[in-house]
Amino acid sequence: MKNTQVLLAKRPLGEITPDCWEYKSVDVPELEKGQVLVEVHYLSIDPAMRGWMNAGKSYIRPVELGEVFRALGVGKIIASQDDRLAVGTFVSGSVGVQEYAILSGKDLVPVDPSFMALPVYLGTLGMSGMTAYFGMLDTGQPKEGETVVVSGAAGAVGSVAGQIAKLKGCRVVGIAGGADKCRYVVETLGFDACIDYKEGALRKRLSEACPNGVDVFFDNVGGEILDTVLTLINKKARIVICGAISQYNTSRPEGPRNYLSLLVNRAKMEGIVVFDNIPKYGEAAQEMAQWILQGKLNAQYHVETGGIPAFHDTLQKLFAGANIGKMVLQVR
Amino acid sequence: MKNTQVLLAKRPLGEITPDCWEYKSVDVPELEKGQVLVEVHYLSIDPAMRGWMNAGKSYIRPVELGEVFRALGVGKIIASQDDRLAVGTFVSGSVGVQEYAILSGKDLVPVDPSFMALPVYLGTLGMSGMTAYFGMLDTGQPKEGETVVVSGAAGAVGSVAGQIAKLKGCRVVGIAGGADKCRYVVETLGFDACIDYKEGALRKRLSEACPNGVDVFFDNVGGEILDTVLTLINKKARIVICGAISQYNTSRPEGPRNYLSLLVNRAKMEGIVVFDNIPKYGEAAQEMAQWILQGKLNAQYHVETGGIPAFHDTLQKLFAGANIGKMVLQVR
Repeated sequence: MKNTQVLLAKRPLGEITPDCWEYKSVDVPELEKGQVLVEVHYLSIDPAMRGWMNAGKSYIRPVELGEVFRALGVGKIIASQDDRLAVGTFVSGSVGVQEYAILSGKDLVPVDPSFMALPVYLGTLGMSGMTAYFGMLDTGQPKEGETVVVSGAAGAVGSVAGQIAKLKGCRVVGIAGGADKCRYVVETLGFDACIDYKEGALRKRLSEACPNGVDVFFDNVGGEILDTVLTLINKKARIVICGAISQYNTSRPEGPRNYLSLLVNRAKMEGIVVFDNIPKYGEAAQEMAQWILQGKLNAQYHVETGGIPAFHDTLQKLFAGANIGKMVLQVR
Repeated sequence: MKNTQVLLAKRPLGEITPDCWEYKSVDVPELEKGQVLVEVHYLSIDPAMRGWMNAGKSYIRPVELGEVFRALGVGKIIASQDDRLAVGTFVSGSVGVQEYAILSGKDLVPVDPSFMALPVYLGTLGMSGMTAYFGMLDTGQPKEGETVVVSGAAGAVGSVAGQIAKLKGCRVVGIAGGADKCRYVVETLGFDACIDYKEGALRKRLSEACPNGVDVFFDNVGGEILDTVLTLINKKARIVICGAISQYNTSRPEGPRNYLSLLVNRAKMEGIVVFDNIPKYGEAAQEMAQWILQGKLNAQYHVETGGIPAFHDTLQKLFAGANIGKMVLQVR
C-alpha cells in the first residue's frame, strides 16, 4: 500500500512558495504494538501552519526539514494494534499531511460521524473552536452589554468567538474581507454588524458600529486592523491576541503603533495558545456541541477537494481568505 | 505680590520647543473661602508632561492653550481661608508651573519636611513612587526567584520599581543610559545587573544578564528596548506599560514589532495609570516610608535650580536623561 506525503523541503522567508514542499510516495510499514493505521479523510488547514514552517523557539517545536508536515485531521482506523481502538472507528489527531498515518492509539480521540459531520471535529469542536472558546471566555472575559469586536470574523476561529460573545449577551461587531463574508457574519452568525475592511474608512465605520467603544477585541489579523481598534478601546479593555494572519507572510512584521492606548486606557493585550487548555477540551466541546444542537452556534466549514496534491493550493487559498468557516482539505 | 507662571502657548508636534511656553507675571488675587495660598518650593518634572501637552482624549484632560501648565509640587501655605490648613503647613498637590498657587484646601495633602526632604514627597512618596509600587506589585506581580527587567532603571519610577522587586526576592536587571547610571543602579540601588543600552548589543547583553529569561518587564521607555525584551520573555510573562519616553517626542511612534511573542508565550502587556490607585496611596506611602527609614529603599532625587524661568530647560534635561532619581525643579 502506497502513502502520499507532503514533507517540509524549505523554510519560506515571506510568502510560502511551492518549492517549500516535497511530495513523496512511500510504502506503509507494518504496525507495532499500540499503533493504529488511520486512513485520513479530512485535514485541518490552519494559519498556524505558517508558524510551524519557521525555525526557532515557539509554543510548539518547528517541523524539521524532511519531516512530514504537521496537520490535524480526522480519519478512519483501518488497522489496529491497540485493543481500545477497533478497525472502523473514526478518530481525530495530529495525522500530518498524508493519506495514511501510523499513530499511537493514545494520541487519538474517537469521534462520531453520525453525531456531527467529520469537518466539525476539526473546526468548531476542534482546535479552532477550542481556541475561540477559551480565548474569548477566559481571556476576553466578555460581560453582558459590553461591545466585542472580532477580526477574521468569517474564519474558523473568529466566527465561533463572536457567536460565543453573542451568547454572553454582548454587542458583537465583526471585521471581515468582502461583502459576502460580512453578509454571512451578520445574517447567518447573528453578529450585530460586520465591517468590510477592504472598503476602507475602517476607523470611521468601526467607530459608528461601536458607539460605546470597544471592551473586548479578539484579534486574528493584526496590522492595520489591530492599530485601528486600539484607538477605539475603552478603559480596562481586553485585547486577545489569537493570531495575526496579515503579518505571517511578511519578513518584517509591523508592530501596533498605537499600543500606548493600552496605557491611557489601563487595558491589556494578552496572547493565547489553545494547547494550554487540553485538560478542559472535553467539557468545552460538550458545551459547544449542545449549542450546535440547539441551533445557537453555527458550525460552518469550507471543503476543498483534490486530496494531498492540493495541499499547497489550499493553504494559499486560506491566506487569500477564500474560506467561510473552517477550511478543510478532503483527502478521501 | 507678583506671581510668575508658565502657560501652555502651543502644542508641540514632536520635540518641545521654547515657543510652546508663555512666561507671564500676574498679581496674586485675594483668597476665597476654603482656599489657601501656596508658596511653591519644588515642582515635579515628569515625562507625563509631554502627554499633557497634546490635545485629545487621554487618561487626564489635556492642558488647554493659555492655561497654567499642570505640575505637581510641594510648598508652604502662606495664607489660608481653610480652617484645617494653618499658615506654615507644608503641602503637596497639583500646583502648576508657577511661584504661587491658589488652591482649594481639600485638593492638598499635608507633608512633613522634618520626616522626609520635600522632593521625596514628589518622588518616592509621590506620583513616581506610587506608579512604581502599584505597577510593579499589582500588575507585574513579581514572585520570589523570578527575573524582573526594568527600563529607565535610574529614573524616578524605574529606580523604585526595581528596588521593590528586589524586596520581593527577584533577580532584577536594569536598563539605563550611560555608565554612571548603571553603576548607581547596581551599587546604590542593589539591582543584580544593569545594561547600558547606549553601548549596543542590547539583546546579547540582556540575555546574558537574564539566563532564566524574563518574567516581568516594567517598561518606561518603549521602542527598541521593548522590542528586544519581547524576544526574551518567558511563558506567562507580564509586561507593565508604564511609559514610553523614547516615543513621546516623535510624531510617528513605533509599535513593538515583536508583539507576537505575547502569543507564543501566552504573555500579557498591560497599561497602568497611577491615578486609579488614589484610595490606596496612603497605605502604600506608609509602607514605602518604612522601607526608606529601614534603609531598604533608596529615595534619590535630582534638583535643578533656576526657578520657574528654568522650567523649559529642566524638562529638556529630563528627556535627555540628565537626572538620576526623581527630577525636581527648585522654585524657592
